[in-house]
Amino acid sequence: MIQTRVLPPAQEAYQYPLLIKRVFQTGLRYETQREICYRGEKRFTYREFGERVHRLANVLTEAGVKPGDTVAVMDWDSHRYLECMFAIPMIGAVLHTLNVRLSPDQLLYTINHAEDKLVLINDEFLPLFKAIEDKMTTVESTLLISDAGNTTADLPNLKGEYEALLAAASTSYEFPDFDENSVATTFYTSGTTGNPKGVYFTHRQLVLHTFALATSCGSFDNNRLFGSNDVYMPITPMFHVHAWGIPYAATMLGIKQIYPGRYEPNLLVRLIKNEKVTFSHCVPTILGMVLGADEAKGHDFGGINIIIGGSALNKSLYKQAKSAGIQLTAAYGMSETGPLIAFAYLNDQVLAGSEDEKISTLVKAGMPVPLVDARVVDANGNSLPHDDKSQGELVLRAPWLTQAYFNEPEKSAELWEGGWLHTGDVAAIDSMGYVDIRDRIKDVIKTGGEWLSSLELEDLISTHEGVREVAVIGLPDPQWGERPYAVIVPQAGATITAQVVKEHLAPSVEAGVINKWGIPTQIAVVTEIPKTSVGKLDKKRIRTDMTSWKEQNSPFLSAL
Amino acid sequence: MIQTRVLPPAQEAYQYPLLIKRVFQTGLRYETQREICYRGEKRFTYREFGERVHRLANVLTEAGVKPGDTVAVMDWDSHRYLECMFAIPMIGAVLHTLNVRLSPDQLLYTINHAEDKLVLINDEFLPLFKAIEDKMTTVESTLLISDAGNTTADLPNLKGEYEALLAAASTSYEFPDFDENSVATTFYTSGTTGNPKGVYFTHRQLVLHTFALATSCGSFDNNRLFGSNDVYMPITPMFHVHAWGIPYAATMLGIKQIYPGRYEPNLLVRLIKNEKVTFSHCVPTILGMVLGADEAKGHDFGGINIIIGGSALNKSLYKQAKSAGIQLTAAYGMSETGPLIAFAYLNDQVLAGSEDEKISTLVKAGMPVPLVDARVVDANGNSLPHDDKSQGELVLRAPWLTQAYFNEPEKSAELWEGGWLHTGDVAAIDSMGYVDIRDRIKDVIKTGGEWLSSLELEDLISTHEGVREVAVIGLPDPQWGERPYAVIVPQAGATITAQVVKEHLAPSVEAGVINKWGIPTQIAVVTEIPKTSVGKLDKKRIRTDMTSWKEQNSPFLSAL
Repeated sequence: MIQTRVLPPAQEAYQYPLLIKRVFQTGLRYETQREICYRGEKRFTYREFGERVHRLANVLTEAGVKPGDTVAVMDWDSHRYLECMFAIPMIGAVLHTLNVRLSPDQLLYTINHAEDKLVLINDEFLPLFKAIEDKMTTVESTLLISDAGNTTADLPNLKGEYEALLAAASTSYEFPDFDENSVATTFYTSGTTGNPKGVYFTHRQLVLHTFALATSCGSFDNNRLFGSNDVYMPITPMFHVHAWGIPYAATMLGIKQIYPGRYEPNLLVRLIKNEKVTFSHCVPTILGMVLGADEAKGHDFGGINIIIGGSALNKSLYKQAKSAGIQLTAAYGMSETGPLIAFAYLNDQVLAGSEDEKISTLVKAGMPVPLVDARVVDANGNSLPHDDKSQGELVLRAPWLTQAYFNEPEKSAELWEGGWLHTGDVAAIDSMGYVDIRDRIKDVIKTGGEWLSSLELEDLISTHEGVREVAVIGLPDPQWGERPYAVIVPQAGATITAQVVKEHLAPSVEAGVINKWGIPTQIAVVTEIPKTSVGKLDKKRIRTDMTSWKEQNSPFLSAL
Repeated sequence: MIQTRVLPPAQEAYQYPLLIKRVFQTGLRYETQREICYRGEKRFTYREFGERVHRLANVLTEAGVKPGDTVAVMDWDSHRYLECMFAIPMIGAVLHTLNVRLSPDQLLYTINHAEDKLVLINDEFLPLFKAIEDKMTTVESTLLISDAGNTTADLPNLKGEYEALLAAASTSYEFPDFDENSVATTFYTSGTTGNPKGVYFTHRQLVLHTFALATSCGSFDNNRLFGSNDVYMPITPMFHVHAWGIPYAATMLGIKQIYPGRYEPNLLVRLIKNEKVTFSHCVPTILGMVLGADEAKGHDFGGINIIIGGSALNKSLYKQAKSAGIQLTAAYGMSETGPLIAFAYLNDQVLAGSEDEKISTLVKAGMPVPLVDARVVDANGNSLPHDDKSQGELVLRAPWLTQAYFNEPEKSAELWEGGWLHTGDVAAIDSMGYVDIRDRIKDVIKTGGEWLSSLELEDLISTHEGVREVAVIGLPDPQWGERPYAVIVPQAGATITAQVVKEHLAPSVEAGVINKWGIPTQIAVVTEIPKTSVGKLDKKRIRTDMTSWKEQNSPFLSAL
């Protein structure tokens, strides 16, 4: 480290840590009357929300929660979840957002591994909780949440029901100052192998992430995504990277917020219509679900901005959404990265281009947001040129990346090998700095001595009008190393065969976009493609399925 | 400090300091083609600007500048100054922005006190520099800047001329990582007594200030001040709190920037017209100068946003600007505070009010920006209620306040008494959180047992159509403790007497806005009011002048 000039502060008291309470205070200062709304049924002004966060802090403290303790939440997306996102870290405790889509065993693993002390639980999840209750090793008490109005339940050391406890609590709580490097939130990411891994974020990290998000989405005019007058509804679960951290930014700006509870497609569309939602975010699968809802038929969404992340955005979904009045913008991030790393900002050069060039940029991972350092490296860790051609692993530095996997020193060392966070994604960066994700390292198909991107192949196949959804995987092949296989859900009434796919891909082979090894010799036509608990294509499962179908010569298959 | 959960990072390498180079890199990533323009004469794209910063880093390093050294700049507002704002801190050195309006003795004091090693000097300041050169104790070498195209000058250990050195330097420089608490910038604030005091800001502070600025001005829609598509020109000197830090925010967003050189009113107006400037900031005095320029006569400024700080904004200036097509918004800050503390954001409640209520808010100091904690306290340091009535000293905490006055332990302790930065301003905060500056503590007039705000009196007197400018001070009075005196510059052709002022204030006395002791019994009618080097009313000088006029029974005076 070089010797710069570092001067001591006049007093220790000068130290001003970056704490989540500052984000909270800012929002309440700017807005008192706007609403935080749950399913269109319950409404709270920012002033009421502020009081409820103070009440919740008192409830938690009286329930025995101490600074450093971990408090788990098991709820649908709600105003309550938002209250927990502030109150729990603001008293110095750690918020553990439980992934309710995990298997009971995995859920149990995360509760024990994170050392949860108190669990707030919506009674709709009681059966799941009861099934694993006996094996919990650290949970000391529970708090009941009930949309049905139940005030008690068969739960261990139940401290009471959320609304009743809040109503009885004081609206005054002095949130303390503490080290900005204190852990504020944690949650588990389910990899393709082994147990879920715990990532965690500190107060400093969440504050900086909030600023980077607000600045990226509010100040870059070429495709400005939101400002304080927007109406926000997440369609990414709050247990998943705290809904991408966007509720923190929305609260800081005093934005009207809508929380939809569980993701019923017709309810989501109704909320968008009735609450005049102008800004949201989701994974492609959920967007497909929303677009397919009865309530969405023939509806013009009026230019609502939706950020797409989690999986690659393809052009056909972009165009389908556009025709329904939805402006999509891709973003890139992952559980380990807070998540925001890049979003598809259009610079002046792109903006001056054709509509098709603009769309090509809007569906890319995008431009790294303020403060992020993104590089592509080869297998030896050497930086590759930004020429849009050189592909390598995307590695990152930024102020809000998880510092490690909780209590997993080996996996942590692998994640941070060489001092850079390894994303496991294969990417290329162009001369302007746009990052284009080409594949997951483990999803790259090595065929005939060439690397073939399963993502690119999915994108090409998806542009066939008869294809509703597609996943491409590689399977071992004695002659070619690996060969690509496609699993396809056709549009209603469409007939898709391996021959149809081959003909559709022929122009891309001629144009040199893919080589001829890229044409799948075998496809499976199915009614549904397996997804992970966060809605991504479950390639591990798809690979297993495809292997067994091949062995069984399944009737789903179509070969050339 | 309470015990929260703090976990060690996977590796030391995880540490990601908040450095100015990240702000720089973000801007260059988002924009390559937009211009940074000097006086309408020289133009550089962001790409060229980026290269020049790298070249300058090489020039400075070759000139012997080491991390921790202080490098001083003495130039008009220019692209060069912007380059120094990045290159100097980014190599780990400290940028000292010299105040060219100080007296030679004061300037010398600041150069020696800051321990400047290298001075970059525009040859228009050569006479000033030569006059004090012999008494400089730490300066080792100099770099010449010349708009006239001079390539050499009689300067000690001259390393060369800026443009020639840049042209010869490499465009490649690997900016290092270092402690985010390293000092990045310093400058001196001239108080009303004693030597100038040095304030300083670290990399971390500038990065956080930049984010708070971008978020406040870009994301709050009710009066959004700028986004990346705006065109920016400062009319606050870059030596003064680095032009309020706004060049850092503008660069991060890739905004087109115009630097006007020296402040010739007609040039400023021409640049606004020709470069289509949409966003600026200045003190009221400078705005008056701009509005009074020949080029501004009859010109509609087309809704340009101008932030007003440094002194209170009064309604009459607001309305005068509005009728010329200029939208003013007040902001509050000081040299010690980075400077941004509050800006006159309109919340929904104010927005729903009358035009007059909106203007009343727009001319207030405003709403504290994200992360700032602002309170008013009584003489014992107790917090006062936010009722718009309770007046006390405004005290602050925020992540970007100067940690101390450089090498001034006693004054530093006074500044940070009780762990809060003491502004010396008397303020009230209303229930919504708006801060209203009522006066400087030392400018409050204690008359007849009551506190009278000189600012409020100035504001009231300024609304008389015959008044161009006004300053109010208090002078000792054997009977009343103190009495208010006004110094007034009348509009051309207007006749202002003490009687005129009394009649103008009568309705305010009747309405209880001020009490009858608030009416000045004596005023001075002058052609100019003395200002400090940064354009504020020089109340110290005004007090001296008024005292001697009273003693001499000056013909300027008018009594009741």
